[in-house]
Amino acid sequence: MGAVAGPEIERLVQLLARLPGLGPRSARRAALHLIKKREALMMPLSSALQVALDKVQVCKTCGNIDTQNPCTVCTDPKRDPAIIVVVADVADLWALERANATQGRYHVLGATLSPLDGVGPQDLTIDALVARAHAAEVHEVILALNATVDGQTTAHYITDLLQDANVKVTRLAHGVPVGGELDYLDEGTLSAAMRQRTLF
Amino acid sequence: MGAVAGPEIERLVQLLARLPGLGPRSARRAALHLIKKREALMMPLSSALQVALDKVQVCKTCGNIDTQNPCTVCTDPKRDPAIIVVVADVADLWALERANATQGRYHVLGATLSPLDGVGPQDLTIDALVARAHAAEVHEVILALNATVDGQTTAHYITDLLQDANVKVTRLAHGVPVGGELDYLDEGTLSAAMRQRTLF
Repeated sequence: MGAVAGPEIERLVQLLARLPGLGPRSARRAALHLIKKREALMMPLSSALQVALDKVQVCKTCGNIDTQNPCTVCTDPKRDPAIIVVVADVADLWALERANATQGRYHVLGATLSPLDGVGPQDLTIDALVARAHAAEVHEVILALNATVDGQTTAHYITDLLQDANVKVTRLAHGVPVGGELDYLDEGTLSAAMRQRTLF
Repeated sequence: MGAVAGPEIERLVQLLARLPGLGPRSARRAALHLIKKREALMMPLSSALQVALDKVQVCKTCGNIDTQNPCTVCTDPKRDPAIIVVVADVADLWALERANATQGRYHVLGATLSPLDGVGPQDLTIDALVARAHAAEVHEVILALNATVDGQTTAHYITDLLQDANVKVTRLAHGVPVGGELDYLDEGTLSAAMRQRTLF
């Protein structure tokens, strides 16, 4: 390929291929698409990247990513300061916001505890969370962590650390996904959904 | 979402979502990945886009995309000037180069004739191809066009125009794809492969 397109195009393809969801072949298609839509897409994307590079920061309160610091969620007066929703990753925060699932504020851990991958408590923003949870205004910490082994390990670890804080620690409900069919669900989810059944 | 991440991030997501292979959701993941890998990916991608914007041009001879003009293929002295390989799109040219399929030079039409989509001969670089084919050095024009109705219509149209040029007009063989199983092939391909069988 190096002989066909110049090294500059090749470099663009290689960088695009490192985006999640794009492989070497689709990165080539994407690069070609960019080059063809020079005015309509390539120039705007180039400047959008530059703007994002200049402006995007990590919120020093909650760990969200935003162009202001503290972030829009932390500074929103309509948000309930009594509730902290703990998520592992900014992607989870965005997912909860898309679902409009909470009026609380967030705390982004950055990852979940994973001894096998060498991720320990010092790699997460757990200290900052414990400090925030001790503030007088906070009444509830919602652990919105993945329902995986790592996620639940992290949830237990945090719950232990919050014993002496004056907060209620809750977690997301387990159950049947909305729109899901029982036939395709695993036994763990089904029995959890049965145990935690609610009045109709 | 507008309330969570700033409008700058939202704009980056929207532009990424217009790349082929990325939808709204994977564009969001890609944007987050870029922001997290600021030094390792976002900055290099931003400058690679800028370099490509500055340098990439369309070859005035063949229509290839390159950072030099005429392109690397057209200026390569090892390429056979007697053969012109006609392709619909730069992506097809790149695919043939990846396969190292020819030592000839190329001619990119830009599209295939498609009356239903309003693509007529004037939208393609057919005039330039006919002019190139009349050069004394050219002996063969290989039509490497898609084996679709539009591709074959274009092939017939070009063949008619090249009647009075002193060139042999050929097309790619139809047949069983290498690694393909007969059971899954359509009848058209199978009967073409049978008709054009070769000595083993």
